[in-house]
Amino acid sequence: MAAPLVLHEYSASGNCYKIRLTAALLGVPLERREYDILKGETRTPEFLGTVNGNGRIPVLQIGDRFLPESNAACFYLADGTRLIPNDRFERADMLRWMFFEQYNHEPNVATLRFWLAFVGEERLTDAQRAQIPAKRAAGAAALKLMDDHLAGRDWFAGKEMSLADVALYAYTHVAGEGGFDLSGCPHVGKWLSRVAAEPGYVVM
Amino acid sequence: MAAPLVLHEYSASGNCYKIRLTAALLGVPLERREYDILKGETRTPEFLGTVNGNGRIPVLQIGDRFLPESNAACFYLADGTRLIPNDRFERADMLRWMFFEQYNHEPNVATLRFWLAFVGEERLTDAQRAQIPAKRAAGAAALKLMDDHLAGRDWFAGKEMSLADVALYAYTHVAGEGGFDLSGCPHVGKWLSRVAAEPGYVVM
Repeated sequence: MAAPLVLHEYSASGNCYKIRLTAALLGVPLERREYDILKGETRTPEFLGTVNGNGRIPVLQIGDRFLPESNAACFYLADGTRLIPNDRFERADMLRWMFFEQYNHEPNVATLRFWLAFVGEERLTDAQRAQIPAKRAAGAAALKLMDDHLAGRDWFAGKEMSLADVALYAYTHVAGEGGFDLSGCPHVGKWLSRVAAEPGYVVM
Repeated sequence: MAAPLVLHEYSASGNCYKIRLTAALLGVPLERREYDILKGETRTPEFLGTVNGNGRIPVLQIGDRFLPESNAACFYLADGTRLIPNDRFERADMLRWMFFEQYNHEPNVATLRFWLAFVGEERLTDAQRAQIPAKRAAGAAALKLMDDHLAGRDWFAGKEMSLADVALYAYTHVAGEGGFDLSGCPHVGKWLSRVAAEPGYVVM
């Protein structure tokens, strides 16, 4: 009997959606527990002491153990399945795109979406507003790099869909909410459709 | 016969050191090729077209294939070795700390080190200088979280040293160069000594 899985999440977060999408593609049931990050519900002493000292969602709970970091939680769920390539280079290359996602994509594409569509531009601090142009340029560069990579291939790593695609799909398919224009990224557009056509796919 | 391994690097970078340290701990020989990032040598058309379209080092070359992202390169080298836990939860937990490193630690601890010790504060742009207080606070919070985690254990994931320790060691052991004070992090201090005592350890 496998330990029950509980996803501690804020459902509008793409990082949380990655985990739901991985579970759905694999047919793994997840219990869900919602926190309102705009109300600070992941910064309470109870959350910090029990779920994640880093004060962030998502966290995947496996029995009585807690696993923060969206891409690590996806890896746990997909370990030993078709979503992680068997080939050594392809497996590392999948992780390459997942680290790219967290370093070059999420802090720009996801942060602008959160600031503009959830917090509201008028409520940003001056320091946040000053970072918008740099995040806009870095996010556009990340999307362009993805488009160039997809010019000759269907999926990010290896010949099949993998967690690299799940991780990058989450915030790319809602990049427009952060003011990013994907019309100049035709290969990304086709790849988004491929992901959405996968058996088991669920919407955000 | 394994494909020859070439590390494309800037040797003062902690991200590059991670890969050298992983290889040294495992006794794997690496050829090294140096680029001066301060002179833009990773932004040339040749580098962008052949080694990494993202214009960044390190990149691990395996035969004629190129693998960017430091933590993915470490994973490639360590796949199937003692530096990656066999247990499914511990393996994902190792990745959790590696994603934490790239998201919460490196952009703060490593960036301040680069700005202050390599670029020089007087040559920073106004936008960079404005980010120093936030990066100082976020870096200190990451180090504090590490210290709390290590209070009851010797290594970050599982009961043995893993890639999580290698990844976090790289910029933590030189955090002082970015102006971070580790004297309030005694568990981190002991852990740094444990890593440096490992057979095969090499200095940066």
